[in-house]
Amino acid sequence: MLKMNETIDQKILNDMKYRVWQANLALEKANLVVLTWGNVSEVNRELGIIVIKPSGVPYATMTAEQMVVTDLEGHLLEENALKPSSDLPTHVYLYKHFAGINAVVHTHSKYAVMWAQSGRDVPPYGTTHADTFYGAIPCTRQLTQEEVETAYERDTGKVIVERFENDNIDPLAIPGVLTIGHGPFTWGQTVNKAVENAVVLDEVAHMALFTEVLNVKHDLLPNYMLDKHYFRKHGANAYYGQG
Amino acid sequence: MLKMNETIDQKILNDMKYRVWQANLALEKANLVVLTWGNVSEVNRELGIIVIKPSGVPYATMTAEQMVVTDLEGHLLEENALKPSSDLPTHVYLYKHFAGINAVVHTHSKYAVMWAQSGRDVPPYGTTHADTFYGAIPCTRQLTQEEVETAYERDTGKVIVERFENDNIDPLAIPGVLTIGHGPFTWGQTVNKAVENAVVLDEVAHMALFTEVLNVKHDLLPNYMLDKHYFRKHGANAYYGQG
Amino acid sequence: MLKMNETIDQKILNDMKYRVWQANLALEKANLVVLTWGNVSEVNRELGIIVIKPSGVPYATMTAEQMVVTDLEGHLLEENALKPSSDLPTHVYLYKHFAGINAVVHTHSKYAVMWAQSGRDVPPYGTTHADTFYGAIPCTRQLTQEEVETAYERDTGKVIVERFENDNIDPLAIPGVLTIGHGPFTWGQTVNKAVENAVVLDEVAHMALFTEVLNVKHDLLPNYMLDKHYFRKHGANAYYGQG
Amino acid sequence: MLKMNETIDQKILNDMKYRVWQANLALEKANLVVLTWGNVSEVNRELGIIVIKPSGVPYATMTAEQMVVTDLEGHLLEENALKPSSDLPTHVYLYKHFAGINAVVHTHSKYAVMWAQSGRDVPPYGTTHADTFYGAIPCTRQLTQEEVETAYERDTGKVIVERFENDNIDPLAIPGVLTIGHGPFTWGQTVNKAVENAVVLDEVAHMALFTEVLNVKHDLLPNYMLDKHYFRKHGANAYYGQG
Repeated sequence: MLKMNETIDQKILNDMKYRVWQANLALEKANLVVLTWGNVSEVNRELGIIVIKPSGVPYATMTAEQMVVTDLEGHLLEENALKPSSDLPTHVYLYKHFAGINAVVHTHSKYAVMWAQSGRDVPPYGTTHADTFYGAIPCTRQLTQEEVETAYERDTGKVIVERFENDNIDPLAIPGVLTIGHGPFTWGQTVNKAVENAVVLDEVAHMALFTEVLNVKHDLLPNYMLDKHYFRKHGANAYYGQG
Repeated sequence: MLKMNETIDQKILNDMKYRVWQANLALEKANLVVLTWGNVSEVNRELGIIVIKPSGVPYATMTAEQMVVTDLEGHLLEENALKPSSDLPTHVYLYKHFAGINAVVHTHSKYAVMWAQSGRDVPPYGTTHADTFYGAIPCTRQLTQEEVETAYERDTGKVIVERFENDNIDPLAIPGVLTIGHGPFTWGQTVNKAVENAVVLDEVAHMALFTEVLNVKHDLLPNYMLDKHYFRKHGANAYYGQG
Repeated sequence: MLKMNETIDQKILNDMKYRVWQANLALEKANLVVLTWGNVSEVNRELGIIVIKPSGVPYATMTAEQMVVTDLEGHLLEENALKPSSDLPTHVYLYKHFAGINAVVHTHSKYAVMWAQSGRDVPPYGTTHADTFYGAIPCTRQLTQEEVETAYERDTGKVIVERFENDNIDPLAIPGVLTIGHGPFTWGQTVNKAVENAVVLDEVAHMALFTEVLNVKHDLLPNYMLDKHYFRKHGANAYYGQG
Repeated sequence: MLKMNETIDQKILNDMKYRVWQANLALEKANLVVLTWGNVSEVNRELGIIVIKPSGVPYATMTAEQMVVTDLEGHLLEENALKPSSDLPTHVYLYKHFAGINAVVHTHSKYAVMWAQSGRDVPPYGTTHADTFYGAIPCTRQLTQEEVETAYERDTGKVIVERFENDNIDPLAIPGVLTIGHGPFTWGQTVNKAVENAVVLDEVAHMALFTEVLNVKHDLLPNYMLDKHYFRKHGANAYYGQG
């Protein structure tokens, strides 16, 4: 069953597995996952491979070798592989439609889930939000019964992309989403950035929840502040960090 | 006073004690217990024994040997045993009436207790809930004064079973309950699963609390989503995990 | 300045200092104190001495030897002693008026402070509360300007005792109080019990806060449940624990 | 590019760097920062130097040597220095206008940010607040679009100072502020005190949030209690601590 091009550099693959494994462990260290509720993947579009966490394996015993390798359609490429995360079809769909991303993270982190369960976008209430997300973090529409029963995980990707396309949202400017009733997906150009975005999303979801308790008027950050904070960290004129 | 059938394999008993001891420690590591507020038991129906935590012993000094062995009515089977958890009669009652369960966990975990104190079922607001609990997590009715004064711990079991029978709830599909004003009981086919269900119950109780703060309409997860998430993890067509 | 009866057994004194020191450290381990916001004392009524934490000394560098020894009026008994906790006069007042207690704990633990700042008693919403506190945890009246400016710390004790006497509350049945706008004091027959009561008070304060968010009717635990849970742990017919 | 007066004692500079580095690490240990969201600086007015955290460097790998040295206008004084925190102009502005302060701390600590995002002052609800802050912790006005686009970080300092001057607030009596939509700045006569004030600000912000949930009347601490608690810790008649 070895379908993978044998010429793929084993070093590149092992490095991907190592990064994906480390990123999964990082989610637990950041208190974003309970039990096995989280998964990270990375894509290498040139080589045509995705590496993703196996399904239901505890973080404590998980090894880099156990990371699962698939092609860009999510088909297994290694013999004796463990089953991939059941959310793999969502990752595959996102890689197909969001050209600029190379890693996807899914968690059930508490505060992001609370917003997802409330079916609401997380409004941009402050600069902590604006530093990473250039606008509200969208929440998807409810999947139809047919979508759920036919291809649930793929169509979870579909409703994410649908929302970004309908509202003309740039997935690199808003590198995360809430799937209604379920939880957050984040992404990035690197696996570390995708994990960082998952950390930020839960943190701003926490802050936004109690900002609303304190301020029933729900005032947003002015747009010029949103611009200022997003662009002092991103794009050609960024001046935050050592880059 | 050694009433236990001497032919019981000591190895089996020691293994049960070890598992129950470890499960009690796991509750503390998962931040579900303060002081000594929690207890775990396991039943072996064939051998006719229950192993349960002793009453009021601190986790830091508790040993596997101290776990208390009783028959299926809760009568002590070992000489010089410590007193069992005062909640033992609840465990006994649950084992008698819920045929498929082999372990019971009781805690005063914060968020589950908040719901128990509010006297409310935890509604299924999301897939994190549906992955483990196939519907609302029920809260029992208040015990009557007579029940409390006559056989409080046994009748705590009775009102749990009453709620499950009245509402036709399958205890394996909803492996947990809130006893009103008191706190959660969870159970499972193994002691590890019962502990895991206690972890999940507190987590979804936390998420549900603030979902209501964010969404005053209290929209539930659609039933077809509840089905999808429960059955992708449970039953013949489950496809989550490596099993 | 050595005023202490030289015949006091140094062993007894060192043991008291050790216990008080350990109890102060236990507050920090239980996440009840930030910075130096907490103090524990123990009294030996026969020997006529109180041992209390020094004022403003960080937990990390605090030693058993630094614990401050006073007589029952709060006068220093050792040469070169550090200054005692500024709350000493409150401790002294409580020891004088609550005959059955041998230790006092004061913290600024978060959830207890929230209730103190709201000026409200913590209602008995559940059995976790009833296991330790046989009724609402009272909040004192506001001190008058004159009381604050004249003998603030002593009169903090005075308003505590006033509330217990006015409402006929037994300080051993309700081993804690909230001083309005300030925070909790707890006590007990031993220093370990007083610390434990501080842990329980903050935990039930946390649970009660969000019980109210979930249940706007604010239903209390029935009195017969309060009785049941309090008396299964306390008094002649208690059956909880190994005692 | 070495512009610094060569006669500056290297020992003094290294000590400043060490203190600023340790203070930055202390923020992380106190759970006040996520990722790299925080910065600390110290000024030596006689020597005319400021030492501040570099921009965007992870705490785990940050070294004392990497701390950035500038003059009192924020101009770099060492060759091959890393880029300073992007908030440096705010620190510079505060040092210029608040004569008594020698250190500034900025974080995105959760509870302080919630209040900043709500655009509200933190009211003095209790003595934990009054022990450190002699009155409400002010929140700045929104910056205008022109201010944001012209000199955002400097004018963040400007709106802070404007609020203190307009309301006649002594920055040593209220050693912290919320910048609207953004987060807290605190300061002090030493870097340790500025960090401590950041810890206290987040703690009292947390307590104040849920005090309001419990007490819809939002009663404040009486002024004579505010006086008592502030002045038992500060000024000529302070009697708290060993000082």
